[in-house]
Amino acid sequence: MPAMDRTGTSPMRILGIDPGLNTTGYAVVDLCGGAGRIVEAGTIRPPRQADLGARMEAIHVELSALLGEHKPSHVAVEQLYSHASYPRTAILMAYARGAVLLACRQAGVGVVSLPPNMVKKALTGNGHAAKRQMQLAIQSVFGLEAPPSPPDVADAIAIALCAGKRLSAGVLLGSADRDRRPMRRAARAGATA
Amino acid sequence: MPAMDRTGTSPMRILGIDPGLNTTGYAVVDLCGGAGRIVEAGTIRPPRQADLGARMEAIHVELSALLGEHKPSHVAVEQLYSHASYPRTAILMAYARGAVLLACRQAGVGVVSLPPNMVKKALTGNGHAAKRQMQLAIQSVFGLEAPPSPPDVADAIAIALCAGKRLSAGVLLGSADRDRRPMRRAARAGATA
Repeated sequence: MPAMDRTGTSPMRILGIDPGLNTTGYAVVDLCGGAGRIVEAGTIRPPRQADLGARMEAIHVELSALLGEHKPSHVAVEQLYSHASYPRTAILMAYARGAVLLACRQAGVGVVSLPPNMVKKALTGNGHAAKRQMQLAIQSVFGLEAPPSPPDVADAIAIALCAGKRLSAGVLLGSADRDRRPMRRAARAGATA
Repeated sequence: MPAMDRTGTSPMRILGIDPGLNTTGYAVVDLCGGAGRIVEAGTIRPPRQADLGARMEAIHVELSALLGEHKPSHVAVEQLYSHASYPRTAILMAYARGAVLLACRQAGVGVVSLPPNMVKKALTGNGHAAKRQMQLAIQSVFGLEAPPSPPDVADAIAIALCAGKRLSAGVLLGSADRDRRPMRRAARAGATA
């Protein structure tokens, strides 16, 4: 595994989130002196028949519990662009992502947002990697017996790892989640990711 | 003013919300035996420079306070369709709307969602009424000295009134906010609203 903390050996704990109203993947990843360790990873699955408020509440409650239990230094979550091809999907993801952002804000934990294609490229060399490719990449990087499943978990581990590397390298500084000026180019790239 | 409570004189208190990350309009409206009264109306204005989480938190905090203070029987909020022409606007509105839905869920208050063009049509006879037209309609209906301003306040009063009328008439029954199957036709109509 490549070095993940160029500056020293102080541990960094990142909670990666792949938000979704049906399935939200999460992963608590410790990074220390070049070594990465998955502390816990899994999914939050709000009741499918519940209304939007109830599903947001389920994500909010579970995430708040994870923040309290694991006390990550940062939460890492995918940036959300306005996918012209899938506007409805993007809107539903915004509700899930909003529950995450609100829980982080209320817990006082900084949020790092990364473009999904950056995370895919960092793990596989391909910014448009398929879900299966991401699962296999995470299996390989962490030496797991099987690929993390469902893919939401692999994506959560990937974004935690990617954010941790960038924070260690000083590329990301604290919360940078404004979602106010998405780059046109990135938006287009994201639409196929 | 037309009758707003066909079934009797028991008062009904509705909190209408026009959600937005920059400006969220709200209005507490009492409906009783055909008469409507604006108890309180105004705006929630999250700090413009704040990140998404902080702006959602501002809406969540203020709305939770309004729910606690006024104890409405229902909250009424516009349905959000995937506006193909304005996907970014729709996504930002989803964050604001999500903060509203979550606060209502946590307070145990049912949410009623109405299509924006239904509200406009009920007030002005035109499902595509301009903001100014809505302000003047609300001024007329409630006999106000001046049109409610900004337009977000007029829209919040309008949706509270419209939801109250429909609840009184037994058209709406409790929470119906799933946002899962938007009608194609309504989505297109909403895109120009």
